Amino acid sequence: MTTRSWWGWGTVEDAVTPQERQHLVDRVRAVLPDADLTFHEPPAPTTLDLPKSRIQPSDLYSTDPVDRLTHARGQAYRDITRNLAGDIGPVPDAVARPRTEQDVIKVLDHCGDNGIVVIPFGGGTSVVGGVEPRGIEGPVVTLDLQGMNRVLEVDPVSRAARIQAGVLGPHLEAQLKPHGFTLRHFPQSFEFSTLGGWLATRAGGHYATVNTHIDDFAESLRVVTPVGISESRRVPGSGAGPSPDRLFLGSEGTLGVITEAWMRLQRPPAHRAGASVRFADWERAVEAVRLIAQSGLHPANCRLLDPAEAFLNAGEPGAVLVLGFESADHPVDGQLTRALELCDGEVVEGAAQRWRRSFLRMPYQRDAMAQHGMITETFETACTWDRFAELHAAVTEAATRVLGEVCGAGIATCRFTHVYPDGPAPYYGIYAPGRWGSLTGQWDEIKAAVSEAVLNAGGTITHHHAVGRDHMPWYSRQRPDVFGAALAGAKAVLDPAGVLNPGVLTTRSTAGPVPR
Amino acid sequence: MTTRSWWGWGTVEDAVTPQERQHLVDRVRAVLPDADLTFHEPPAPTTLDLPKSRIQPSDLYSTDPVDRLTHARGQAYRDITRNLAGDIGPVPDAVARPRTEQDVIKVLDHCGDNGIVVIPFGGGTSVVGGVEPRGIEGPVVTLDLQGMNRVLEVDPVSRAARIQAGVLGPHLEAQLKPHGFTLRHFPQSFEFSTLGGWLATRAGGHYATVNTHIDDFAESLRVVTPVGISESRRVPGSGAGPSPDRLFLGSEGTLGVITEAWMRLQRPPAHRAGASVRFADWERAVEAVRLIAQSGLHPANCRLLDPAEAFLNAGEPGAVLVLGFESADHPVDGQLTRALELCDGEVVEGAAQRWRRSFLRMPYQRDAMAQHGMITETFETACTWDRFAELHAAVTEAATRVLGEVCGAGIATCRFTHVYPDGPAPYYGIYAPGRWGSLTGQWDEIKAAVSEAVLNAGGTITHHHAVGRDHMPWYSRQRPDVFGAALAGAKAVLDPAGVLNPGVLTTRSTAGPVPR
Repeated sequence: MTTRSWWGWGTVEDAVTPQERQHLVDRVRAVLPDADLTFHEPPAPTTLDLPKSRIQPSDLYSTDPVDRLTHARGQAYRDITRNLAGDIGPVPDAVARPRTEQDVIKVLDHCGDNGIVVIPFGGGTSVVGGVEPRGIEGPVVTLDLQGMNRVLEVDPVSRAARIQAGVLGPHLEAQLKPHGFTLRHFPQSFEFSTLGGWLATRAGGHYATVNTHIDDFAESLRVVTPVGISESRRVPGSGAGPSPDRLFLGSEGTLGVITEAWMRLQRPPAHRAGASVRFADWERAVEAVRLIAQSGLHPANCRLLDPAEAFLNAGEPGAVLVLGFESADHPVDGQLTRALELCDGEVVEGAAQRWRRSFLRMPYQRDAMAQHGMITETFETACTWDRFAELHAAVTEAATRVLGEVCGAGIATCRFTHVYPDGPAPYYGIYAPGRWGSLTGQWDEIKAAVSEAVLNAGGTITHHHAVGRDHMPWYSRQRPDVFGAALAGAKAVLDPAGVLNPGVLTTRSTAGPVPR
Repeated sequence: MTTRSWWGWGTVEDAVTPQERQHLVDRVRAVLPDADLTFHEPPAPTTLDLPKSRIQPSDLYSTDPVDRLTHARGQAYRDITRNLAGDIGPVPDAVARPRTEQDVIKVLDHCGDNGIVVIPFGGGTSVVGGVEPRGIEGPVVTLDLQGMNRVLEVDPVSRAARIQAGVLGPHLEAQLKPHGFTLRHFPQSFEFSTLGGWLATRAGGHYATVNTHIDDFAESLRVVTPVGISESRRVPGSGAGPSPDRLFLGSEGTLGVITEAWMRLQRPPAHRAGASVRFADWERAVEAVRLIAQSGLHPANCRLLDPAEAFLNAGEPGAVLVLGFESADHPVDGQLTRALELCDGEVVEGAAQRWRRSFLRMPYQRDAMAQHGMITETFETACTWDRFAELHAAVTEAATRVLGEVCGAGIATCRFTHVYPDGPAPYYGIYAPGRWGSLTGQWDEIKAAVSEAVLNAGGTITHHHAVGRDHMPWYSRQRPDVFGAALAGAKAVLDPAGVLNPGVLTTRSTAGPVPR
């Protein structure tokens, strides 16, 4: 049995060890000898003064203070730093834990009738303010579906399963395993995030190519909305009008609550082939990845680490490409051989394993270092290949500039998490010495500067972290106004009381004309 | 220079030759010795009595009778039989041929202000009543974008091009060829349909797996709506809210007019491998195709013909699978070898070529045989593998029964056009002796019976032929009511005057609550 941390990532048991912490502090000390790396303990949650709940506790609603506190925000760096500072901010009045779809309907009915805002929580790993009751006047209920966590049905012939939305990654895989199947959707948050959360935020997963988002595995969705249940037909493909599922995928709890989905499954891979390739030159590495992405070889893994990322997290000099092919049906060595032919680099050993270990520890290490006043956070985008060099230069320049202004120094690293024939999805890491007491504000300044750079250079404000409240200013500019109006029109019908996650995706509560 | 047929498929020059016609008649005569195969000429279009146009001709609007007539309906069997019978039905009052986006805006403004219905025409190859002004009281303008037909920009690095929506397939490919690219979207209608039409109807194309619909090649769309222009950002992938493009893909001219799109391109294949496999047993053939679809081998072509289809259109006994792999980058022989291992059948020669020749002649032959009172038409669906055997039995049974009732006899054939890991997209052909003078009504009875069977067995009413007016009764049942209401909500905002292709996709012109 493990215990979820109330203030930081993951479980108490898996948090950094004293040795790991000391190692991290020593590494930072080596490059920043003057940094103030004083250690700060989080406050005890019971000492924090929560506003009184405006909702009666009941079978459906828990108003327990720790429950409310642990459902008050997600797991962004700015969430962690506020927790560490004891800055609790807005907190839901109650947490609802439905056991059945009927319970979900009861909550939506009760909240709709009484003007109570409902925020679907998923696993609460949002890094974009998606589950935080920010700027809401009235009472708020946070909806935690983790009690609805069963695989209800497996169709081994079509390779699909009907699954309740509240299931966490490991529990989902454990239920599929006896049937010989896997979903193979492994976001970094896998242990702590839910199927419903993945679907509602268009999460990015295991596959670097072809099936990059959870969207691609969704065969049909069942969604409870304030005006009724929407269940799409289970078909492998359809051309019958705009896709109903595509409206709810990425709707972030603003149009309804996903309660179940039929998901496409895989057999576990029986054949694998992988290699890591080091490049002397970043531009050549990017070019090799472009050729691989356009080759139709479809690597499962195609993660390019820039020199800083490779050095920090895989102990390698130079840019490193971690390539992997897999299949449940046939050998994939030929694909790897061909991909390596497209690479003007040198095969190296062990980098992939080192990087993978590091990858899984990153969120824990981010939080541990926040306790020492360090700023460590990530952001991601995607752009077409023709714009990448310019975007990368602009983002790196903006990051370096703002880090200089806000922190005196700092670095930005880059990796590709997913790649497409028409462009990469670059993922940036920020490492800088912060000022204890000002970490949240410092990060917000950095985030605003890099988001401006991303938008101005033609990127998307998010490739797979969703919009939430933190990305709204840039999402509003990225999205066509006309589409925003259409979405508001749809929301006005599905959520007439405007109680579903207000402030996310749409700021309008009623439909109206858009300026020409 | 060729001339489009006013009443039937394609060009006058490519219509069946006297020898081809005689051969077809002889084949039918051999199996149906008592059928009345009298030949009927189409009426001269100038002898048909069109209702007076209610719109003033102008630079924008043509009210020429043949223009109006050739834009009055699509290319379904029921369209052809009505043309042959001189039953012209509702006809648009004018045809608008914009040369620029500004012209499109002018038309939408003028029509919105004056309550004139606008029907975007594409290439006019709709087989579902998508472009027909059926059941509309007021004046109607049909919008023909074929004057907007240029490839405006090619990005060779990201492999994408910005293309005007009115371009026909061959002209599009001719413009891409000098750049060394191809879209490789080859629906049966390729010669006569437009990019905008493909996008608005989620057309199915070349690839049997992975990129089955035009949707998958759309990088960004530019859409003129009555309330403004929606242009999505050009990014390879995004998780920023529900996809704007996915709302317009399949919207069939009800939400706006697609004027341009950035489309993902391919290099022409340099490596190919293909084979045809004959199976003694249909069930074994289906099972082999399921295994291939679930193998991750991604064939470009994976077309399974049932014994009737194989006999009629490829001259082969038994069920035949036409398999093809292609790549611009690497040899694909290994993939073919592995796919053949999954097949419990016998490799045969020449079937693919014979079938392909037949495929391209089918629409012409359908129309020629309609002139002899024969009913020849197709319909398609998709379903999960676990339901396929039952769906196929139910559809075949329903078809056989209704053909017996309506025509005395007739057969239904089946092929798979596209396949997915979780199910096939079966495509049915109907061949029956009709009664001259009653062909349209006979077909409508057949279509209703098979559509009921498809819906009841869990299929989609359309995999890639769109909804139009003909599929509305079944689409309304297939689509979740809640999604229908959301779509109506979006339409109410984008098309406040309700002038865009009314009767298609949504019958509500204003948003309202749906029954729980």
